[in-house]
Amino acid sequence: MTEESLLEIIRQELPISHPSLIVGSGDDCAVVRPPPEGHSLVLKTDATLEGIHFTQETDLSAVGWKALCRPISDFAAMGAIPQHALVTVAAPLARSENEWRDLSRGIGKAARTFKITIIGGEITRSPTTLFISVTLSGITGPRTLLRSAAQPNDLICVTGKLGGSFQSGRHLTFLPRLLEGQWLAAQSGVHAMMDLSDGLGSDLPRLARASQCNFLIEENNIPCHQDSSTQEAITHGEDYELLVTIDPKAWLKLHADWKNHFPALELTPIGTMTSLKTPATPIPPGFDHVEDFKRPL
Amino acid sequence: MTEESLLEIIRQELPISHPSLIVGSGDDCAVVRPPPEGHSLVLKTDATLEGIHFTQETDLSAVGWKALCRPISDFAAMGAIPQHALVTVAAPLARSENEWRDLSRGIGKAARTFKITIIGGEITRSPTTLFISVTLSGITGPRTLLRSAAQPNDLICVTGKLGGSFQSGRHLTFLPRLLEGQWLAAQSGVHAMMDLSDGLGSDLPRLARASQCNFLIEENNIPCHQDSSTQEAITHGEDYELLVTIDPKAWLKLHADWKNHFPALELTPIGTMTSLKTPATPIPPGFDHVEDFKRPL
Repeated sequence: MTEESLLEIIRQELPISHPSLIVGSGDDCAVVRPPPEGHSLVLKTDATLEGIHFTQETDLSAVGWKALCRPISDFAAMGAIPQHALVTVAAPLARSENEWRDLSRGIGKAARTFKITIIGGEITRSPTTLFISVTLSGITGPRTLLRSAAQPNDLICVTGKLGGSFQSGRHLTFLPRLLEGQWLAAQSGVHAMMDLSDGLGSDLPRLARASQCNFLIEENNIPCHQDSSTQEAITHGEDYELLVTIDPKAWLKLHADWKNHFPALELTPIGTMTSLKTPATPIPPGFDHVEDFKRPL
Repeated sequence: MTEESLLEIIRQELPISHPSLIVGSGDDCAVVRPPPEGHSLVLKTDATLEGIHFTQETDLSAVGWKALCRPISDFAAMGAIPQHALVTVAAPLARSENEWRDLSRGIGKAARTFKITIIGGEITRSPTTLFISVTLSGITGPRTLLRSAAQPNDLICVTGKLGGSFQSGRHLTFLPRLLEGQWLAAQSGVHAMMDLSDGLGSDLPRLARASQCNFLIEENNIPCHQDSSTQEAITHGEDYELLVTIDPKAWLKLHADWKNHFPALELTPIGTMTSLKTPATPIPPGFDHVEDFKRPL
């Protein structure tokens, strides 16, 4: 297997052409047409590592799916539209041609599902474990939702159910809420949004800090997966659901419209944003990437 | 050290504001203004790994410099203008606060030197070795030079000198030929360009294949560093010099202009592109990332 023959295997599995692509994989850089007038450029990078985001036994097509879907979830959280991906894979010696094909197939499936073109990347060897880094570029939707725009009295809502993602394997098969995020960003009563990757217990305080607010949570209202307790729904990460704050005056109409558009996915109010004068509901933290350095792999 | 306090150390060392930045580090994605009219978007990702691109003993500020300069060299090779960087670092447990500061300082120095803003990224833990992945986004210059545009009879030229980069430590301190690449792209007699990262012996055949040409090389004309033989200049990688093909009718005037603009850097003709009817000069290959899987680290 040479670099060129491996690249050929990978190319077979990946969507690599797009109307906006001027120079694709194979030259020093990729060149694409700029965003259409009125849109800004959106960029996000996310890494997926063996020993953290999956284990040595995980099916590599699921790993490829997850590697691409993680940054897609960040685009969802801003109501943005992903278009192009750059994929870097550092793999140990032992990975076979079939494993490369599986990994490429998973990346390709996610790319096709969400209409993303792979425009470049790199393969290199890793001393011990598999490492995948994905950068997505795309464009803003009609409105860009930030973490910092929540207001006191906003309802705090989450999509879907939380908890137990890693234990159940859902972290490998989740569907990023891309259409839902784009729809929410188009509703005028929606103020702030982010995706839940490190767990509600870490992510909600981040959104509150960015918005200079506090929050009150009704823990009993948190939608938990059947296999998870409320505590687990707060502290487990990798849900990839949306956390969104909504003007309470807009809620009833918006919720009715939501149920029409997304009948299979719940949007659940779990609390209220407050001013900094109200102490926040104490909740245990989720995942901290640096604190986690102290845990053995 | 928490994630937030580590991010604070990193932010102190990095240039993180730019007039075109709309939403920077801290939200789900970065948002930047689109390229000005007439320019396309340019994207490149490049990884820098312990055990391949540096050793455990390498000063981390040099590692940071190199991690950013590798993709800058790819922008140089197209005559493009880098603007924004996303930086992912996967680090093992043992790296200290001072080492994070050194790494950030090296990245920051390269970013300031080449007027690049760090707009996002990620830190995560790695089981054993340090891994850095950098994505650059930017815009096309007045003209974009491809690998595929070389023509029979073009002079093949290289900037600077080749060979011995890893052995001498030059791979950690090199200056990407960004201004030189942008200048060459603006000259009408210049046809094709790429950067020399895997060694002339691998990179020149790639350019020739992309252009459906062959090449004749005068090995004695290859500019070698004092510490390198001609064979080493062909097979060693990591030179980060430019390989460029030039219409022979434009050469004399262009070379005179080059010497005015870049008196400290040589531009040396080393051969001629030919049609596929002429057999290429046999040269040994440089670095192949997949073949290299077979070598122990």
